[in-house]
Amino acid sequence: MKRKLRMGMVGGGRGAFIGAVHRMAANLDGRIELVAGCFSSDAEKSRLSGEDFFLEPSRIYDSYEKMAEAEAALPLGERIDFVSIVVRNDLHVRVAKAFLEAGINVICEKPLSYSLEEGRELAEVVKKSGKVFALTHNYTGYPMVKEARAMVKSGKLGRILKIVAEYPQGYAITALKSEEEGSISNWRMDPSVSGISNCVGDIGSHAENLARYITGLELEEVAAELTTFIPGRPLDDDGNMLVRYQGGAKGILYSSQISTGDENNLNIRVYGTEASIEWHQEHPNELIVKFAEKPREIWRRGNSYNGPEAVKHTRLPFGHPEAFIEAFANLYMSAAEAIGDEVEGSYPRAEGYDFPDIKDGLAGMAFIEAAVESSKNNAAWTKVAH
Amino acid sequence: MKRKLRMGMVGGGRGAFIGAVHRMAANLDGRIELVAGCFSSDAEKSRLSGEDFFLEPSRIYDSYEKMAEAEAALPLGERIDFVSIVVRNDLHVRVAKAFLEAGINVICEKPLSYSLEEGRELAEVVKKSGKVFALTHNYTGYPMVKEARAMVKSGKLGRILKIVAEYPQGYAITALKSEEEGSISNWRMDPSVSGISNCVGDIGSHAENLARYITGLELEEVAAELTTFIPGRPLDDDGNMLVRYQGGAKGILYSSQISTGDENNLNIRVYGTEASIEWHQEHPNELIVKFAEKPREIWRRGNSYNGPEAVKHTRLPFGHPEAFIEAFANLYMSAAEAIGDEVEGSYPRAEGYDFPDIKDGLAGMAFIEAAVESSKNNAAWTKVAH
Amino acid sequence: MKRKLRMGMVGGGRGAFIGAVHRMAANLDGRIELVAGCFSSDAEKSRLSGEDFFLEPSRIYDSYEKMAEAEAALPLGERIDFVSIVVRNDLHVRVAKAFLEAGINVICEKPLSYSLEEGRELAEVVKKSGKVFALTHNYTGYPMVKEARAMVKSGKLGRILKIVAEYPQGYAITALKSEEEGSISNWRMDPSVSGISNCVGDIGSHAENLARYITGLELEEVAAELTTFIPGRPLDDDGNMLVRYQGGAKGILYSSQISTGDENNLNIRVYGTEASIEWHQEHPNELIVKFAEKPREIWRRGNSYNGPEAVKHTRLPFGHPEAFIEAFANLYMSAAEAIGDEVEGSYPRAEGYDFPDIKDGLAGMAFIEAAVESSKNNAAWTKVAH
Amino acid sequence: MKRKLRMGMVGGGRGAFIGAVHRMAANLDGRIELVAGCFSSDAEKSRLSGEDFFLEPSRIYDSYEKMAEAEAALPLGERIDFVSIVVRNDLHVRVAKAFLEAGINVICEKPLSYSLEEGRELAEVVKKSGKVFALTHNYTGYPMVKEARAMVKSGKLGRILKIVAEYPQGYAITALKSEEEGSISNWRMDPSVSGISNCVGDIGSHAENLARYITGLELEEVAAELTTFIPGRPLDDDGNMLVRYQGGAKGILYSSQISTGDENNLNIRVYGTEASIEWHQEHPNELIVKFAEKPREIWRRGNSYNGPEAVKHTRLPFGHPEAFIEAFANLYMSAAEAIGDEVEGSYPRAEGYDFPDIKDGLAGMAFIEAAVESSKNNAAWTKVAH
Repeated sequence: MKRKLRMGMVGGGRGAFIGAVHRMAANLDGRIELVAGCFSSDAEKSRLSGEDFFLEPSRIYDSYEKMAEAEAALPLGERIDFVSIVVRNDLHVRVAKAFLEAGINVICEKPLSYSLEEGRELAEVVKKSGKVFALTHNYTGYPMVKEARAMVKSGKLGRILKIVAEYPQGYAITALKSEEEGSISNWRMDPSVSGISNCVGDIGSHAENLARYITGLELEEVAAELTTFIPGRPLDDDGNMLVRYQGGAKGILYSSQISTGDENNLNIRVYGTEASIEWHQEHPNELIVKFAEKPREIWRRGNSYNGPEAVKHTRLPFGHPEAFIEAFANLYMSAAEAIGDEVEGSYPRAEGYDFPDIKDGLAGMAFIEAAVESSKNNAAWTKVAH
Repeated sequence: MKRKLRMGMVGGGRGAFIGAVHRMAANLDGRIELVAGCFSSDAEKSRLSGEDFFLEPSRIYDSYEKMAEAEAALPLGERIDFVSIVVRNDLHVRVAKAFLEAGINVICEKPLSYSLEEGRELAEVVKKSGKVFALTHNYTGYPMVKEARAMVKSGKLGRILKIVAEYPQGYAITALKSEEEGSISNWRMDPSVSGISNCVGDIGSHAENLARYITGLELEEVAAELTTFIPGRPLDDDGNMLVRYQGGAKGILYSSQISTGDENNLNIRVYGTEASIEWHQEHPNELIVKFAEKPREIWRRGNSYNGPEAVKHTRLPFGHPEAFIEAFANLYMSAAEAIGDEVEGSYPRAEGYDFPDIKDGLAGMAFIEAAVESSKNNAAWTKVAH
Repeated sequence: MKRKLRMGMVGGGRGAFIGAVHRMAANLDGRIELVAGCFSSDAEKSRLSGEDFFLEPSRIYDSYEKMAEAEAALPLGERIDFVSIVVRNDLHVRVAKAFLEAGINVICEKPLSYSLEEGRELAEVVKKSGKVFALTHNYTGYPMVKEARAMVKSGKLGRILKIVAEYPQGYAITALKSEEEGSISNWRMDPSVSGISNCVGDIGSHAENLARYITGLELEEVAAELTTFIPGRPLDDDGNMLVRYQGGAKGILYSSQISTGDENNLNIRVYGTEASIEWHQEHPNELIVKFAEKPREIWRRGNSYNGPEAVKHTRLPFGHPEAFIEAFANLYMSAAEAIGDEVEGSYPRAEGYDFPDIKDGLAGMAFIEAAVESSKNNAAWTKVAH
Repeated sequence: MKRKLRMGMVGGGRGAFIGAVHRMAANLDGRIELVAGCFSSDAEKSRLSGEDFFLEPSRIYDSYEKMAEAEAALPLGERIDFVSIVVRNDLHVRVAKAFLEAGINVICEKPLSYSLEEGRELAEVVKKSGKVFALTHNYTGYPMVKEARAMVKSGKLGRILKIVAEYPQGYAITALKSEEEGSISNWRMDPSVSGISNCVGDIGSHAENLARYITGLELEEVAAELTTFIPGRPLDDDGNMLVRYQGGAKGILYSSQISTGDENNLNIRVYGTEASIEWHQEHPNELIVKFAEKPREIWRRGNSYNGPEAVKHTRLPFGHPEAFIEAFANLYMSAAEAIGDEVEGSYPRAEGYDFPDIKDGLAGMAFIEAAVESSKNNAAWTKVAH
């Protein structure tokens, strides 16, 4: 591209955490500029947010429908090349459809949709549109996660026997004492907005995605126990699961929001017949590799021995740590490759791209639905739809 | 006691790992001396081992029955005050009964017995004998585990919501390639010797015991998936479980012998409404305490702020690490208090003792049986007998 | 500011590490845009780099003198509000003077200058200009470094007794075998470009700055041993020092480029009479606080208990790690406050700003000169000029 | 040996830390028994301590001179085979001489002597006696320290360029507020008992010994700054040094007792041209190995890839941590080999033994004297006597 990609945003106004992350991820490499947005359905709030981001008043909208229509009417190079969708779960599909049908590429927050069924409808729309659809399962953007995936693919681990993926957070525990109005935990706890699950949907799905990204293995069945520890809430705040992967690997997958004092403690261990790997999101620049009969290895980002996938997604030399925003920006960078291709008429490339897409979104929704179903049936083994 | 306690041993001859550990644990504090033993049912092997330990020839036996009889016939102060039993699982009860019925106190390796039923018979014998029976669930001997228990008891963690106990090892993975004859993995894999489970019985039971010791919570139900990854073996080498504790706490408990490169990676996390704790057996001198809204704390062994239970079981100042043998020796130290009392006629003390006993053994066996039963029923929730 | 700040850059063309870091740091928050640059003294190289960054051709220069002149001639709001200088050490002062004298604010790479003398001349120019001058001692941009500084200031550590600052890297060791032409290590090893020191100048000065930032203590004397381990090089690649701070604190400060396998291993420990702190650049989201008689504390970025200085420089919630680029961007953010004030005519604020400035640059140069002088005198104690 | 070695002890009565450590180290393997002792110059205290250890009353002495004489008069096999000396520094030589001259082998606490001169006299006595003399620089007993030494010897690290050895403790800081009578810090602060240095003598000498043991390099010169931070004390409580080793390696060596919150934080890093190693006493089962261009390795105790020196000094399988007492016991185990040889008339073996001896003691005393001398001369470089 001879120019910056032009980005729009729906949702993510003043004070919204994830909208700010998307903007920083888009900004980082200087190849994308935010030029339009509908940051709130409240026109005044949207306007104020748009001013914060130095947008032209004419490009600040108070409805995503109007925005899709108006932007699509602008000439290429002026109109947005893609929209980032950072609204509540129940609106993902509606907003995404509006833009895709207007011919605009989409980067969308996870989970894909309010329900698996709704997600499948969107999949049809994506297919029909021929546009780029990226889903921000951002943890797969970390270079050492890519290194892990490359290791598994190369056979270094041998046959995968076991996967332990865990994602405990503790932030919901404070709600036990003082439920705050309007806090993030609230809409996530509202089934009409969030869908059938809170904790598994919000973060369990990241753990599922991470395990699948690294190992390439699909989940076959889950036996799940979802629990609501915070009294009076309609949705789960903790979920423990036994899982079975295709090909015979077994494992554990759990997520929690009531694990007091845990922050964003996403960890994964993959055990193979020849070696095993361990990665910790809170210390993302290291990948631990363990063997039966030789010293443990610590693979560190930025070194000459890193594989091409990790190298491509690395910005700094070894020892200069990269972290969450850079990983998120990697997802944007990869999606931007596809979007650039689409804008220039060469999408898709034969060799594919390295970002989570509609298939990942459907797998995530199928996982969530299977987990909830299993839990209703007292943790009976439940097939994950493919 | 004005003299050292006199110890006998059954099993644990030359080359046996756990026998050597018991002897080092007994030796450490200079208050116990090994004076008799039947180290093998092969008379020559027993004799050679006894010589290694500088025993008088007359106190080296080639049958535990003869040993129990002969030692019981010696006068108090000369005869053994207790016997340490470090034989294979299927012999624990037989040997323990022989000594208890001969009026001799017992320290016994875990698991308690070949089956829960057999364990219950032994419980009757222990009760009838009035003698001391200690079971070496040694991980509860670590000072910072005792500190953890004291924290939970004091209410510092609030109500316990969740417990994650894991015990992955990787040593069995090498058997995938070259099954060695006579290796430790073999008899543990033989159901006629080991009982109905290998991995859960051998190490899962430690995780169960540790969780119960720290939290005081009994397991109510388990949903378990036991797997045999090493082809041709009759017993499990991996076990993943969802668990429910009395009072509503939930959790995960797993053990594994095919987790390549993991060594003796026993870890526990206990989450309460006010705080959570985390302890790692491979770094045993630290206890991590996490809160919702204040800095994490690292409690370290040997400090003035440690509670009396930890202090009592600490031998060295802070920063001078203690480890596995010292923890094991703590169990011996506590059992020796009871044995000393028994020898002097004041057993048991009203305030009790701090070592795993027959009740822990029965809980462990009930756990193993429930796990195996659940796994046979495709991980259906299965009650743990109390 | 109602608009983005407009940035220019001198140096930092294609392939230059530190230039790219400056651009990412400037981009991250979407409040600064790169609009002009002289990326190389080779016109073609400069042009190609400028195209990479989507600059208008008229704003791509092939000499910094022309750039300063041309930009100064543009109206406010169109011309650059500041320039980032990322050239070699020997050019820092010349370039900075050109822009300051043209009335343009400056953000400059460290070290300040080729020599202390030259730095003092620049200080006069800065003073006379009334413009902003920021120096990118970026490690002070980390939130937990700011937390550390606040702790010291609050008296939590008591009186500071000892400071251990270390900065080992290992990258130069590969030069032992194959000296690459044109590699970064080369111009840093050239006294006519780099100044009187390589290792102490390049990274030792970061350690000095970090210690001073956290503790507020000035160095009084150093006893330094600088060594050149790589044969044939004119400048140091390793430097060990005993140091004395004002007020009686003692310490160690060392930097190294031949510490095989160390990456960017900057660490600091500050010991006070009441508590001590420890921070590791490679794990920057944690600050370890140690006490004589209570549990260690781990202060983690993004928590409610963080002080206002850390909070202000934090973009993500706890557990979502921030790292090098975000810390660098914090420096840009703080400098941008001053630059915005300058543009709007309200510079400087009475309460000051939180970024390294000309005073830090002079302190750094004085430190380098004292270290080199001491080393020449066989590590004799040498005063650091104030 | 067909029997246990018989041990005596001088010093180390009730409540003494290091005496208890020596007894546990001697007890651990069941090959040594304590049979005699003079635990205090106060006869009653000595008697009570001896009763604690179950000694025969006739073997409890109230003077070391009487003990040496009486024990020497007993027949071999009844009399002590060696004595462990755990008295204050100023008595080491006197007591050691008494036993050596009575023909009894000696294990002695460090430092060797009150002064280097006195140490040299003792060296003559040792030589003349033909008896075993071992010095408890216990940190060299750790298996992974032995692995480190073997790595250096094998050339894996290439040529050694730099050594950073540090030993900060914080325990003395509490004395700033309330100087306790009779506390351990007191006699160590008394020059008439402790010698010319407190902190460097007590723990700096361990760091020096550890560096020498691992690398085989002798110290040539030190530039030391010793400080007394606790007011009113005659001896140092902190010591920072630049050091030069034979053959051109440089480094830093420091010890401290006022490093608030540090416990027993002995760490060493050895940098070579091919690789570097890092070992932390508080996590002794791991040895970190770093390379310029391949992944870091974590060598862990108890694995099949450990070298013969580490294996010989390992009691437990991997993952079952060993710690301080086991390392101390390794020193006893090695000294016991020599003592057993001496008793059986085959001392010394041609291939030597692996324990610190009189040469290590002299090197330590020379180091202490050089450090104190240098510090008096404002950190001037001072030769270490050989």
